[in-house]
Amino acid sequence: MRMYDIIRKKRDGCELSAEEIRFFIDGYVQDRIPDYQAAALCMAIYYRGMTDAETVAMTECMAQSGDTVDLSRFGALSVDKHSTGGVGDKTSLIICPIVASLGCKVAKMSGRGLGHTGGTVDKLESIPGYRVTMSQEAFMHQVEEIGIAVIGQSGNLTPADKKLYALRDVTATVDSIPLITSSIMSKKLAAGSRNIVLDVKVGSGAFMKTPQTATELARTMVNIGKQCGRNVSALITDMNRPLGRAIGNTLEVIEAVEVLTGKRRGDLYEVSVALATEMVTLVKGINDPEARSLVIDAIDSGAAFDKLKEWIAAQGGDIRYLQDTSRFETPSCITPVISPADGYITAMDTERIGSAAVLLGAGRSRKDEPIDYAAGIIVEQKTGDRVSAGEVLATLYSNDERAISPATERYLGAISFGDEPPESGKLILGVVG
Amino acid sequence: MRMYDIIRKKRDGCELSAEEIRFFIDGYVQDRIPDYQAAALCMAIYYRGMTDAETVAMTECMAQSGDTVDLSRFGALSVDKHSTGGVGDKTSLIICPIVASLGCKVAKMSGRGLGHTGGTVDKLESIPGYRVTMSQEAFMHQVEEIGIAVIGQSGNLTPADKKLYALRDVTATVDSIPLITSSIMSKKLAAGSRNIVLDVKVGSGAFMKTPQTATELARTMVNIGKQCGRNVSALITDMNRPLGRAIGNTLEVIEAVEVLTGKRRGDLYEVSVALATEMVTLVKGINDPEARSLVIDAIDSGAAFDKLKEWIAAQGGDIRYLQDTSRFETPSCITPVISPADGYITAMDTERIGSAAVLLGAGRSRKDEPIDYAAGIIVEQKTGDRVSAGEVLATLYSNDERAISPATERYLGAISFGDEPPESGKLILGVVG
Repeated sequence: MRMYDIIRKKRDGCELSAEEIRFFIDGYVQDRIPDYQAAALCMAIYYRGMTDAETVAMTECMAQSGDTVDLSRFGALSVDKHSTGGVGDKTSLIICPIVASLGCKVAKMSGRGLGHTGGTVDKLESIPGYRVTMSQEAFMHQVEEIGIAVIGQSGNLTPADKKLYALRDVTATVDSIPLITSSIMSKKLAAGSRNIVLDVKVGSGAFMKTPQTATELARTMVNIGKQCGRNVSALITDMNRPLGRAIGNTLEVIEAVEVLTGKRRGDLYEVSVALATEMVTLVKGINDPEARSLVIDAIDSGAAFDKLKEWIAAQGGDIRYLQDTSRFETPSCITPVISPADGYITAMDTERIGSAAVLLGAGRSRKDEPIDYAAGIIVEQKTGDRVSAGEVLATLYSNDERAISPATERYLGAISFGDEPPESGKLILGVVG
Repeated sequence: MRMYDIIRKKRDGCELSAEEIRFFIDGYVQDRIPDYQAAALCMAIYYRGMTDAETVAMTECMAQSGDTVDLSRFGALSVDKHSTGGVGDKTSLIICPIVASLGCKVAKMSGRGLGHTGGTVDKLESIPGYRVTMSQEAFMHQVEEIGIAVIGQSGNLTPADKKLYALRDVTATVDSIPLITSSIMSKKLAAGSRNIVLDVKVGSGAFMKTPQTATELARTMVNIGKQCGRNVSALITDMNRPLGRAIGNTLEVIEAVEVLTGKRRGDLYEVSVALATEMVTLVKGINDPEARSLVIDAIDSGAAFDKLKEWIAAQGGDIRYLQDTSRFETPSCITPVISPADGYITAMDTERIGSAAVLLGAGRSRKDEPIDYAAGIIVEQKTGDRVSAGEVLATLYSNDERAISPATERYLGAISFGDEPPESGKLILGVVG
């Protein structure tokens, strides 16, 4: 078998065999196939796509390219959740304790934030004492005992995806549904959960900008995940505005606590309940209304918040910060963004809002950049709201005074005003199951 | 400027600016742009094509990437010829002395053979004593004095093309009309001739398999060459069967001598006369019939053969071999290929016939492989001929006895027989001027 022939076959629109895909993935991970041939193949896949059979083969090869987590001891109870990334998306902090309190087993490895999207691991680390690493044994034991553990991606998980994603990132071959699918689903397969709920974000702050492409990605991921032997479903949810009101690590933890303690409803609550309901439905095989009422009970009874504290404490976090969120550090600069206009907010460029938070110190523009956990934005007015000139649109939090002015400018540049209210978009655009 | 943005722009079907193309070519030659980004761009170009403006920019950048030959001292008289490669294509040996005898200036750098196609430099080296290298000064002097010099590609000519072609060769991105055009035309520009005649081969032994693609390539090359300030025209000629009857270095030199001494007519004579006529037409600005009669006179009068001997002698070749071709070494094995069937030859897989000659030692399957100059094939019967079982189809020449059997098998595998004569194809399919 020769890589040249594989590139040529895909270039000409033919279907690659599972053997050919394995030859490519194994050869690439083992440095037998050079980057330039992999880049040519990725560009051919960008144009020609992949069949389901090809995508399944690539997903499985990449999942098997490194360590895999064996969660078989948890039988049908293991459940994972993945978001394609958004701004203000702190749903994992809310739904993981909800479903764990209902008997699901959440053995989760999460990522760090990069660019305008945040990462769960950073948010957890903003809780003093929380440890994102532990031994495989302690990880399993914690899931067994309390139903939930969330750590950073560790070990040699899906090295094929790491190498291939880095290459796609510099060769303009990221935007390919089958390549995105194999990248995401290979990590989910390797992480071992039987049940997987995907949150595919769509809109100005998401990777997928249109409902059509988001739906296609959701369908492909669900389909491939099922063919790889997992129970998978996906929600397609709005990211044309930040989710909830908090952006930034500490601010998001506080907002998650507010939802779990019944103090906050709205879009974040609705999306969290919907995702948790989907997870419970998959794990327990019960119908949607039944699962939904279990989820709401878990919040209302305080069971989910208790589970959050149990989990955070088990990983060394100081739960006094959760019991009294005023303990969290407040940054030196807290500055309002003032509306320059009267009218309706007709649109928010959510990616730009995310990048304003990065300017304030809440995220990274390069890997390994330090993060200011206290930094971020509280969004006071969102798309559809009527505002007056002089009214507060948002509040910026930062320990870097020089960041306030550019972040204000960027935030304002992300807001469109108009005289008429915009069409109100759906929060949950669809379910793919 | 970032290479990522250039890849993405081309990927999305937009036109690159001349500055962006220069950024790519200069950066790639200077190793600032890695192979994997160049490979991704080439694959995007494979799918999206390039506009004439893009192809002109790329051709000029590549031409300027290394040394260039200055033939301005020859004014409008310098003329070059390029064949896209075929089997039995020894026209350069015939037409260069013809046009030099008519006052044209041929300062030619030729290549070696690779795969099923031969190279002029190898053919010339099969003449004992012929030197394919000389100083720039001696080269110019010889062209000045006798009107012709042919050497191997020397110096640092079009390093961008060398590097890019090697990459395209292993990433399945060779088959792209604009990339082929910029590769060929950049070398022709750097080689300096004011007038350029292209011989675009089409058929089973050629790179272009269909008249449509050959015509498109010819049109593009002529167009780009003109936009780069040269006089260019192209013939599209048949390569569904070997040209002439000889394949292999010594055998082809002998056949060329036969044409120049009036001993052989047929397809090789016709294509050679047509190409030489086109060259003379371009250089002298005279009409086709007038140029053609000059060309035929040059052969009939012996002036062209005299020029061949003068040229070969000037580069150290022993012209006694040309005066009496029976002096050339005869290989140890000369074996007929016998027809297994009665009927018409309906088709010849000419690439396969070329590869049978490589088996016999006449060519290289890898760079730097040694060549047996005496090896090759004399094709006795071609497409359209009626043959009887037991008749000789071809004669194989080799010094390697073990090669005879596989070469015979390959030769026979390349011949299709049928009861009806095939449609007779045109020898010269078109002229693009």
